Amino acid sequence: MTTFASAQDPLPSWNDGKVKESIVAFVENVTKVGSADFVPANERIATFDNDGTLWAEQPMYFQAFFIFDRIKTLAPQHPEWKTKEPFSSVLNGDLKTALAGGEHALLEMAMATHAGMTTEEFEAIVTDWLATATHPTTKRPYTEMVYQPMLELLAYLRANDFKTFIVSGGGIEFMRPWSERVYGIPPEQVIGSSIKTKFELRDGKPVLVRLPELNFIDDKEDKPVGINQHIGRRPIAAFGNSDGDLQMLQWTAAGSGPRFCLYVHHTDAEREWAYDRESKIGRLDKGLAEAATKGWTVVDMKRDWTPIFPNENE
Amino acid sequence: MTTFASAQDPLPSWNDGKVKESIVAFVENVTKVGSADFVPANERIATFDNDGTLWAEQPMYFQAFFIFDRIKTLAPQHPEWKTKEPFSSVLNGDLKTALAGGEHALLEMAMATHAGMTTEEFEAIVTDWLATATHPTTKRPYTEMVYQPMLELLAYLRANDFKTFIVSGGGIEFMRPWSERVYGIPPEQVIGSSIKTKFELRDGKPVLVRLPELNFIDDKEDKPVGINQHIGRRPIAAFGNSDGDLQMLQWTAAGSGPRFCLYVHHTDAEREWAYDRESKIGRLDKGLAEAATKGWTVVDMKRDWTPIFPNENE
Ligand SMILES: [Ca+2]
Ligand SMILES: [Ca+2]
Repeated sequence: MTTFASAQDPLPSWNDGKVKESIVAFVENVTKVGSADFVPANERIATFDNDGTLWAEQPMYFQAFFIFDRIKTLAPQHPEWKTKEPFSSVLNGDLKTALAGGEHALLEMAMATHAGMTTEEFEAIVTDWLATATHPTTKRPYTEMVYQPMLELLAYLRANDFKTFIVSGGGIEFMRPWSERVYGIPPEQVIGSSIKTKFELRDGKPVLVRLPELNFIDDKEDKPVGINQHIGRRPIAAFGNSDGDLQMLQWTAAGSGPRFCLYVHHTDAEREWAYDRESKIGRLDKGLAEAATKGWTVVDMKRDWTPIFPNENE
Repeated sequence: MTTFASAQDPLPSWNDGKVKESIVAFVENVTKVGSADFVPANERIATFDNDGTLWAEQPMYFQAFFIFDRIKTLAPQHPEWKTKEPFSSVLNGDLKTALAGGEHALLEMAMATHAGMTTEEFEAIVTDWLATATHPTTKRPYTEMVYQPMLELLAYLRANDFKTFIVSGGGIEFMRPWSERVYGIPPEQVIGSSIKTKFELRDGKPVLVRLPELNFIDDKEDKPVGINQHIGRRPIAAFGNSDGDLQMLQWTAAGSGPRFCLYVHHTDAEREWAYDRESKIGRLDKGLAEAATKGWTVVDMKRDWTPIFPNENE
């Protein structure tokens, strides 16, 4: 339990200690008029990784569960999938074999399930899936696998005139249908990986058709590229959980003036998952070392967060 | 002179008439709580073309003047340009020949002048150029070749909780250094054409290097593509001046609920320029026809705007 639980506390799910103090000190510092570190509101840009930073990512990225469910749904229209990997393994429930092909296999499955429809049709597919799909071990809806302390942090930053952005390796159109409702982050502040789209007039009605062609992978060295493309100015605060966020944090830290970089370290095997240097998903290795060297804030989930999920004790 | 000049008039440079009435009626309609056409603030997205819609574009796109000036500045480092078209013609002051190669020649010159430096270096180059460059016929700084009525319209929409975006075929990083100061539009709400960038660590310092490789041309059919990529939801209002904006207006108009589409028609050869169906720059042909068919608003600059530029009578 947090011992600092006044009505005014904007971060009630964060336990007292140096991590919470570092966040509050940064925000108070950049928002205090007359402070040498004051940052005008229009420059208060904060970027957040999604998987493992705003919501969980174990035992697999949640978008992978979406892909597998789509393959099962679409299988009747694709008889060839019965004998074609990685699709056949998905249909046989053997996800380990399906994922044995690594990133290439996942990309092939993503293209087969994320393209070929209009943007509006895809938005409806994602929305419908999220309304009924549940996490395999917790049985929670995926949108309730978000981190309560991070929801509070997003709201706290916005209350201090920060503009909050998602910068995720996940699909941009997979996140946008629910990011505003769940995180308070509108679609125009979501940056992610994308496929190409094409404008068409169908019976005089304009549509955007999703093509099975990569447009952008928003990960690692390309997170700063995506940030520059979409935002056009450097964040003053960045939040991630893996080595895939390292360049985003480096890019953020390298700006002049006050900067805040934070890693979420997954340390709670009981309430969530514990993983870092050896994990295939969300590996945090180089990032931990650089955080120590540069004095970035590292959240110890077990120590710093109570609760982890919303309505955790219900 | 406008006859409707009260202290409350949010659009004092717009003359009374059906055009001004159509704008005010739309804004009052979508912002009136309880109205059947009420649109929540987060969905009030308005997109604006830039060249010929927010600032002038004659006798050439202003970015072309920037390119020519850059070629002259960089010429000492490129002795080969003395004998290489289109560069040699630019250096000889023969812009007509330089542009004879059409879009391909312009693109070649853009790549030679817009790539090879970091994003921060390019921002400084644009800022420095704008501080001293002046328009060849009016002798005004380019940032004073903006349309006063459109500045008022942007402010009026924002005062009614619209989020205003630029959606331009011009270079995204050519516009961002001044869009906030001049239009009140922050860099994260600027969409434009772009080249690719690459993240690098130079002596441990992260930079984004601009590469001579096209990323996206934000024109015609790709304006809705760019809008979807950056904003992720459909505008309820769109403003343009040429056939290059037609698909953006079609995409906007095709959404459900109230929509507003407007073309700026250049009709004032005395105070600005008069051009439409036959113009090489900013051709407005199909767009005029479709505006008539669909009942979109068409600004007659001569009739509807007084003044056209800020401080016009100084
Ligand atoms: Ca992550
Ligand atoms: Ca234009």
